[in-house]
Amino acid sequence: MNNVEKAIEALKKGEIILVYDSDEREGETDMVVASQFITPEHIRIMRKDAGGLICTALHPDICNKLGIPFMVDILEFASQKFKVLRELYPNDIPYDEKSSFSITINHRKTFTGITDNDRAFTIKKLAELVKEGRFNDFGKEFRSPGHVTLLRAAEGLVKNRQGHTEMTVALAELANLVPITTICEMMGDDGNAMSKNETKRYAEKHNLIYLSGEEIINYYLDKYLKD
Amino acid sequence: MNNVEKAIEALKKGEIILVYDSDEREGETDMVVASQFITPEHIRIMRKDAGGLICTALHPDICNKLGIPFMVDILEFASQKFKVLRELYPNDIPYDEKSSFSITINHRKTFTGITDNDRAFTIKKLAELVKEGRFNDFGKEFRSPGHVTLLRAAEGLVKNRQGHTEMTVALAELANLVPITTICEMMGDDGNAMSKNETKRYAEKHNLIYLSGEEIINYYLDKYLKD
Repeated sequence: MNNVEKAIEALKKGEIILVYDSDEREGETDMVVASQFITPEHIRIMRKDAGGLICTALHPDICNKLGIPFMVDILEFASQKFKVLRELYPNDIPYDEKSSFSITINHRKTFTGITDNDRAFTIKKLAELVKEGRFNDFGKEFRSPGHVTLLRAAEGLVKNRQGHTEMTVALAELANLVPITTICEMMGDDGNAMSKNETKRYAEKHNLIYLSGEEIINYYLDKYLKD
Repeated sequence: MNNVEKAIEALKKGEIILVYDSDEREGETDMVVASQFITPEHIRIMRKDAGGLICTALHPDICNKLGIPFMVDILEFASQKFKVLRELYPNDIPYDEKSSFSITINHRKTFTGITDNDRAFTIKKLAELVKEGRFNDFGKEFRSPGHVTLLRAAEGLVKNRQGHTEMTVALAELANLVPITTICEMMGDDGNAMSKNETKRYAEKHNLIYLSGEEIINYYLDKYLKD
């Protein structure tokens, strides 16, 4: 079993894995879990040990079925009414053409929406709704804005964009899981992203699979070129 | 000096204070710092010891000068094009009529925007821009979406809404500071919000001022009724 296959097995067991994108991109390692298995404990580990923004990444097909756009497209449309939104347009992201940010949500049964219980509930219920194909219930079950940030993966996943959003959704797809992952950037105490060495040590200490973007992309493209 | 006055002095020194809203509202304690004094270390303490969503709350007058609306109003306008946004309308927030969420931003000189250095830089530069009255530079200096969530305080602050957004901006106003605060909910390890007793113990342990919403609201209303 190679490293990607080990990561797929770990995701299937609801374990956290660590994914480093690349030196040429963010140079960040994200904690990753398959959203259908999310628990309050995952949220607690992510906020304490990773410390970035806990986001939930969705396959573009799911976003299309739910009808959720990129946030940048929402802001662009709304700039007809709120002029400043056009001035804030992100045309200068240093390592990317388009941010994968979409809307933020809370499940309508949560209270404030921010606690570990609430965030896990919101994410798990989203994965459930998608798994059961109840796309039309999205508005009934969720409200926006909220405390869980959704990320929309690019069409064609890693064929077109090699962000943590695409790489982790590709892994979930390869694992035949609901292609929705929950991810969080690992922060260093020096004010920067946690270094590759530190995140590797964290993986070893906690017996977690650690893999690089390159491994995922090669594995994914190999598989799809063969099929 | 009463507790609110002590809190004002602490904010002026760039210290973190803790604010509990009320048993009838969120029942949450937020870490609070005056944004003009924000440092990467504040961000690190907030993400590690508080664990909620690090947000920056702005006085409504500032939001009006910058032109930034509530996110719910952006989504409502954009629902003309993206239908699902209407279905997601938050008409059932258990303890509130309207969420204070506005847009998210990164400073254009940040890299990913999520590190302690980047988030502190984004927040500090926003407070600087406002302090210097350079409202027209907002679009030049910042992009949206980003990793720092802005909160828009209600007109009249605590006279009209008693959220952490309004209470902390009211404190900054009382302190004659730039009325922009950075706040983060304190999470418990049991999956709920950190309890009042635990946050009080945290305040004692770290020698921080701890105050309740009621104290702020009474002090603020007294002052404005007298003036």
